[in-house]
Amino acid sequence: MHEFWGRHTLCNMEGIDKVNINNSDFFITLLRNAIATTNATLVDIVYHNFIPEGMSVIAILRESHVAIHTYPEYQALFLDVFTCGKQADPEKIVSYITNKLNPKQCFTQTIIRSSPSIKEKSF
Amino acid sequence: MHEFWGRHTLCNMEGIDKVNINNSDFFITLLRNAIATTNATLVDIVYHNFIPEGMSVIAILRESHVAIHTYPEYQALFLDVFTCGKQADPEKIVSYITNKLNPKQCFTQTIIRSSPSIKEKSF
Repeated sequence: MHEFWGRHTLCNMEGIDKVNINNSDFFITLLRNAIATTNATLVDIVYHNFIPEGMSVIAILRESHVAIHTYPEYQALFLDVFTCGKQADPEKIVSYITNKLNPKQCFTQTIIRSSPSIKEKSF
Repeated sequence: MHEFWGRHTLCNMEGIDKVNINNSDFFITLLRNAIATTNATLVDIVYHNFIPEGMSVIAILRESHVAIHTYPEYQALFLDVFTCGKQADPEKIVSYITNKLNPKQCFTQTIIRSSPSIKEKSF
């Protein structure tokens, strides 16, 4: 039985190389490799390219999801990694992606999610 | 140009009616109707049914995403609504879903996401 408990890491990045920020193949490979760094199971990856630019790439995990939304005009993106249960570590996935993208600025926070009677706490 | 700014509402619910919690058609319709309550544009909805039970339903929006992960064994779910820009209101989507599911317990928080040089604040 899955535990109704998870960690949700939210990350905002700016100053990303423009070469990759419109390349969906790059982000799909990046997500696959990042998810492989921890004990998470990839179910599917979907993406959408917006006009004129920007994309959303979302991985469904057995443990919840990873989502990336890019803003090429700002060389920026929002990243979410939400993993339910205690086996997968969302911060490992965020660290892998951050190291590969090497943003000039990055802000990350992790929120514990569980029963609504227990108020959520950031690490 | 999209602004690199958004609101991310996270919601944990328990005490949901068991009738609908394994019904993907119910959740797809619920998401479509919830998204229609605010100025957001639906791009696609994907879902995955887990064995023996539980499901993930994710809507890609022009403004980012909505994600639901259900835990039938706890009559519980995690809901995320992330909307970039200021036109769509994620709390309207969460309110619609909460009203329809009528959970016994619910905890909701909204996080402002923007440039990493600006620390995120909860409402």
